[in-house]
Amino acid sequence: MAENKKNKSALAEREGVPQPTTLNLKVVEGLKKFRKKTPSVESLLKGILNQDQGALSQAITLIESTALKHQQQAKQIIEGCLPHANKSIRVGITGVPGVGKSTFIESFGKLLISKGKKVAVLTVDPSSSISGGSILGDKTRMEELVKEPNAFIRPSASGDTLGGVARKTRETIILCEAAGFDVILIETVGVGQSETAVHSMTDFFLLLKLAGAGDELQGIKRGIMEMADSIVINKADGDNLKAAKMAKNEFNRALHLYPAKESGWAPKTLLCSALKNEGIAEIWEVVSNYFETVKGNGYFQYKRKEQNKFWLMQTIESRLKSEFYANPSVKVELEKQLKAIDENKTTPFAAAEILLNLK
Amino acid sequence: MAENKKNKSALAEREGVPQPTTLNLKVVEGLKKFRKKTPSVESLLKGILNQDQGALSQAITLIESTALKHQQQAKQIIEGCLPHANKSIRVGITGVPGVGKSTFIESFGKLLISKGKKVAVLTVDPSSSISGGSILGDKTRMEELVKEPNAFIRPSASGDTLGGVARKTRETIILCEAAGFDVILIETVGVGQSETAVHSMTDFFLLLKLAGAGDELQGIKRGIMEMADSIVINKADGDNLKAAKMAKNEFNRALHLYPAKESGWAPKTLLCSALKNEGIAEIWEVVSNYFETVKGNGYFQYKRKEQNKFWLMQTIESRLKSEFYANPSVKVELEKQLKAIDENKTTPFAAAEILLNLK
Repeated sequence: MAENKKNKSALAEREGVPQPTTLNLKVVEGLKKFRKKTPSVESLLKGILNQDQGALSQAITLIESTALKHQQQAKQIIEGCLPHANKSIRVGITGVPGVGKSTFIESFGKLLISKGKKVAVLTVDPSSSISGGSILGDKTRMEELVKEPNAFIRPSASGDTLGGVARKTRETIILCEAAGFDVILIETVGVGQSETAVHSMTDFFLLLKLAGAGDELQGIKRGIMEMADSIVINKADGDNLKAAKMAKNEFNRALHLYPAKESGWAPKTLLCSALKNEGIAEIWEVVSNYFETVKGNGYFQYKRKEQNKFWLMQTIESRLKSEFYANPSVKVELEKQLKAIDENKTTPFAAAEILLNLK
Repeated sequence: MAENKKNKSALAEREGVPQPTTLNLKVVEGLKKFRKKTPSVESLLKGILNQDQGALSQAITLIESTALKHQQQAKQIIEGCLPHANKSIRVGITGVPGVGKSTFIESFGKLLISKGKKVAVLTVDPSSSISGGSILGDKTRMEELVKEPNAFIRPSASGDTLGGVARKTRETIILCEAAGFDVILIETVGVGQSETAVHSMTDFFLLLKLAGAGDELQGIKRGIMEMADSIVINKADGDNLKAAKMAKNEFNRALHLYPAKESGWAPKTLLCSALKNEGIAEIWEVVSNYFETVKGNGYFQYKRKEQNKFWLMQTIESRLKSEFYANPSVKVELEKQLKAIDENKTTPFAAAEILLNLK
C-alpha cells in the first residue's frame, strides 16, 4: 500500500534517483515538449480522422491526463470521433504471465496486417501504476509489429483503480476506431477483475493457455472459462505438442459442459505456436467465423449496446460509492460498524442505516 | 408491471372481490387481532428466548411490516436476539419447480427432528408478491413437518424487490436462531438472482435436480453449479433409478472440472427419493461432514463474517443507487442519455457525468 501511494504520480517514482537513465530523460523531454506544444482540439481531431498516429497518440495522452483542461479537450475530441467509431472488431486477449501474450499478439497482428487490416494494440493493466511498468511498456517485445505503419501499440494508462484504467482504454478504443483501425486487440494480464473489464469492452474474448502437466482446469480463475469465446493453447510445438493436444481435448470437454452462450457461439479450443507462426491463420479463421455468426444473428449490435449501458450504470454506481465512502465521517463510522458486526453486536442492515444517515 | 403495482399491499389485492373466501376472512381477522393485541417488545423478546413459536411468529410479522412503528419494534427485538443468534447451521435449498423441494424438505426436516434438532424452514421468493402466493404458502405441502412441535415453517415475506425480501429473511434467521432453532433451511425457487441471495445467507448450498434425458447440464443456470456444495438428484427410484445414476456420474464429472472451492470442500452428487425417504440420511451425513470440515479449517466463521460485510456493503450500495435513480430529474435525463448512447452520440462516461451532476 505504501508503495502504491508513493507511485501515484508518474514523476514521483523518480524522486531521489540521482542519475536518471537515458530512457527517463527522453520521457521527461517528451513530456516537456508535449506540455509546450499541445496542438488544438481541432487539429488533433483532424489528424486522427486523417489517420495520423502522432495526433492519435497525443489525443490519448489527453485522455490519460488528470489535468482538468486536458480532460475537457479529450472530451471534445472523443465527441468528434464518435460518429467515426464503432466500426472495428474488438478482441480481448488474456493469459497468465509467461503464456506468450506478446509473442502471440506480434504473430497475430502481423497476419492481420498482411490481410490489409489496421491493428491497434491496447492494454488494461491496473497493476502498471504499482509496479511502475506496464506489460506492454517494453515495446521491443513486439519488435516487428511496432515497425509496421498499420500497427499502433499503446501501453496501459496508469491509474489507481481498474475503473479508471478501463475508462481510459474504452475512450482510447473510440479514438483508434476513428483513426481507421479496424481490429483492436486488448491485452490484459488478468490482475483482479481486469478480465471482466476487458470482456465488457470487447466483442470476442480469447484465453491463452499453456499445456500443463495433467489437470489443466484447476489453475483457471473462476468465471474466465465462461467468458472465453476461444481457448488457444500456445507453444504447441516440438516436445510440447502431445501435451497440448491432450489439453485441447480436456478444454473442449469442459467447454461443452458449460451452458450454451447467449451469442449462439460454441467456444472452441485451438493450438498454436506463436513463435513459429503456426496455427495463427486458423485462429483468425475462427475469429472471423465468430463475427460472421454474431453479426448475422444480431448479437454483435445487441452486445455493444448492452456494454454501453453497462458502462453507464457502472460509472454512475462506482462514483456514488466512491463519493459516499470518501466522506470522512463515513470512514470513521464504517470502522466502528464493521467491528460491531464482527462482534455480533449489530446486523448489517442496522449498521447500513447508521452509515447512510451520515450522507 | 401493472399487476405488480396493484399488489403492493397485501390487502389491496382483495379489492373488488365481492365474497371473500373463508380463508381470506380468517387472514383479515388474524390481522385485526394482531393489530389490536401486538404484545410489547419486551414480552415478544422474552417469548422468543423461551422458544415460544407464537412470539416468534408475531415478531417476524413486525419485521415484514412496512409501518415505521413496527420497524422500530422489530429493530429492538433483533438487537435483543443477536447475542443468542448465529448458533445454527444454515442450509440453502434450490431447484426448479417440480423437482420436489417441499417433499425433500418434509423428509429431510423429519429426519433432523428425529435426531433431536429444531428445524426452521424459510423461503426467499421475490415472486410471491407478484403471483399473490408463496411457494411455501400452502403449508399442507409439508403436512407432517408442520405438525412437529420442533419445526417452524414460515413462507416468504412479500416484497417488491429481492433485496427487501432477502433482508427480511436474514433478519428472520436471527430471530429463529434466538428461538433455539439449530438448523435453518432456506428454500428458493430460483427466480432472478434469488439463488445468489440465498447462497450469501447460508453456510451450505444444496441444488436439487431430477434426472433428465441425456444432457443434464445444459438446463442449469449460469453460476448455480459453482455455488452448490452438493447436488442431490431427487426421485431416484423405480424406473428413474438408472437415469439418476447416469446423471450422478455426469454431475460429478462436471463438478470435478470446476476450480477448487475456497472452503476446501469438494462438492458431491447424491441420489435420493424424498417421497420414499430413501437416501435422506446419507445427505445429512454429507452435510454434517461439510460442517465438520469448515468448522475445523475456520472457513465457517470466515464466511459468516464475509457474508455480514457483503450485506452491509450491499445494503448501502443498493440504497445509494435506488435514491439516485428515484430522483425525477435523473429519470428524465437517463432516458435521454440512453437514447444518445444507442445512437452513438455520446459515450457512457460523458452521459454518466451529466447524470451525476443532477444529484
